[in-house]
Amino acid sequence: MTEKNVYGGGITPSCPVPLTEYPHVLLAHGGGGTMSRMLIENIFVPAFGNDSPAALHDGAVLDLENNNIALTTDSFVVRPIFFPGGDIGTLAVNGTVNDLAMCGARPRFLSAGFVLEEGLLMESLWRVALSMGAAADAAGVRIITGDTKVVERGKGDQIYINTAGVGVIECAQSITPSRIRPGDVVIINGDIGRHGMAVLAKREGLHFESAITSDCAPLGDVVLDMVHAGIDIHCLRDLTRGGLAAAANEIAAAAGAHIILDERSIPVSNPVRAACEMLGLDPLHVANEGRFIAFIPKKDSDRVLEILHAHPVGINAAVMGTVTDNQGGLVTLRTLVGTQVILETQSGEQLPRIC
Amino acid sequence: MTEKNVYGGGITPSCPVPLTEYPHVLLAHGGGGTMSRMLIENIFVPAFGNDSPAALHDGAVLDLENNNIALTTDSFVVRPIFFPGGDIGTLAVNGTVNDLAMCGARPRFLSAGFVLEEGLLMESLWRVALSMGAAADAAGVRIITGDTKVVERGKGDQIYINTAGVGVIECAQSITPSRIRPGDVVIINGDIGRHGMAVLAKREGLHFESAITSDCAPLGDVVLDMVHAGIDIHCLRDLTRGGLAAAANEIAAAAGAHIILDERSIPVSNPVRAACEMLGLDPLHVANEGRFIAFIPKKDSDRVLEILHAHPVGINAAVMGTVTDNQGGLVTLRTLVGTQVILETQSGEQLPRIC
Repeated sequence: MTEKNVYGGGITPSCPVPLTEYPHVLLAHGGGGTMSRMLIENIFVPAFGNDSPAALHDGAVLDLENNNIALTTDSFVVRPIFFPGGDIGTLAVNGTVNDLAMCGARPRFLSAGFVLEEGLLMESLWRVALSMGAAADAAGVRIITGDTKVVERGKGDQIYINTAGVGVIECAQSITPSRIRPGDVVIINGDIGRHGMAVLAKREGLHFESAITSDCAPLGDVVLDMVHAGIDIHCLRDLTRGGLAAAANEIAAAAGAHIILDERSIPVSNPVRAACEMLGLDPLHVANEGRFIAFIPKKDSDRVLEILHAHPVGINAAVMGTVTDNQGGLVTLRTLVGTQVILETQSGEQLPRIC
Repeated sequence: MTEKNVYGGGITPSCPVPLTEYPHVLLAHGGGGTMSRMLIENIFVPAFGNDSPAALHDGAVLDLENNNIALTTDSFVVRPIFFPGGDIGTLAVNGTVNDLAMCGARPRFLSAGFVLEEGLLMESLWRVALSMGAAADAAGVRIITGDTKVVERGKGDQIYINTAGVGVIECAQSITPSRIRPGDVVIINGDIGRHGMAVLAKREGLHFESAITSDCAPLGDVVLDMVHAGIDIHCLRDLTRGGLAAAANEIAAAAGAHIILDERSIPVSNPVRAACEMLGLDPLHVANEGRFIAFIPKKDSDRVLEILHAHPVGINAAVMGTVTDNQGGLVTLRTLVGTQVILETQSGEQLPRIC
């Protein structure tokens, strides 16, 4: 069971809500009254390790290092809520932390908004909240304000979480598609497709020869190491919904650049490759939750690889693409068999509700 | 029809998404691909009046006046999504704006996270997005980053919105229950119970003699006028879920104070009073979305009333309570008939899904 990772080695503190009395979430837990307060004080405050519980009732006041900050938000509706390598809680923290990291910001504070379905197991809520606390610790952020609503059975799906994040910009240059230049290299920090395939396998009850665990991980530290090493990062993008293909296309369109990716250099693990082949999926379109691409000047590529390889989330980092000119808004792929094809974004979603 | 108010006098720009092709939201609109981008570019960017659409794809970078900021979040699951006096969009903006105002902060930036149910009318999404744009304009905030997920039919209820807000603290003293002192007066900015009763009436198809419209409104300006007039505001709280009773009890508990409220001085409109009597509800427990209580030194009460009366949201402001000592954590109510009773928070919710 990889699920136990998120509780710090399998030791799960037992749920502080008396489960014989409240085994399930009730509509009244969302009413703003004493039942709501019980949820905040017995679930969220201890799980998030928050020392100012009052802040979770209402807004929180922050004193930041400087006034140049990044704000981002993400809603999480993954099904199932527990999967190999994480759960909706780890995802809700890392997803927003990573969006901040992609702005060159040090992730600092998160808000957490819950929409709970009436009847959710209280124990599940507790496990998810614990995961959020552990993921926040690992990413160096604090969950400082929150909100909970409960909707009737059949009007939700166990638990949806929104997190918004505030980070402090530590990168002097702006990190944005418009700074991409011909000659830039495209670096990826690791193998792709694990998150999407892990969730799909769990949801559909598929058993592959080798178990696939989500790549869900925080990217703030490795990005800030690049920033503080003086790397002139032109652009960063994490590879979530729509995978590498969607991210590369978004950037190519925004930059008006032509990006060429080399399929042979894109790391894909054997289990993911086999599972994708079996299901007729393309790993280039599968969601990740701990993967990003960096556009940097060619001269910095060795230094960036060195930095990435020193981090657990960057062990398999590789140069896998180049920018050829400043016109086009196009992504082409040099395939495994040597042909060159246009790599398009899918209009919909290969795998819905993957995050 | 009061609903038209939120579109600036009834002129609704037509939905930029081709409705013959996409009359409903599809799962693919949440996939992170070109269909998702269509939603951002054709619905959210024009409706929010955002001049940097790229920011809605990802995180946004802010340059604030100082580094003392407030962060807050709220999820909105109101049913029905359109009601007299507003809709889920106006609520999602004003709810978070008001939480910032209660921290003594000038509301500046919002994020918006959507969980859409497959099959939602595209036209409804457009109307809600327009309402958010109009409410943001009215409150002086900008919606600068967002996220959209789509869940299958029966896994949501048309539309849930989370907003997180960033504000800049403009109040030198902290605004918090611990600053409440014996002798403080409690001031309310207007009549209570309208939002809850307006939503309930619409949801249940009830027709009262006089139509009740929601009090949903932004409170930032009036609070900042108090701040900049030099009022020593001890504590503020908006009266949302659980109404005045819940807010007063939360503060009494946090401050360890004894708050006495005078029912005769609490403004309640005749239609709300009549509707509550008919339904066996108590307006003290009904949700509001444009009402707050302020705890201030008695010497400042005339000045505060003057400031409040100058604002549309404060026309009916009144002193309606006092703090008697610093022990107790208790709220008592001097009733209309002159008796004194303990006013408790309800454990659940009189009216679920009111915000």
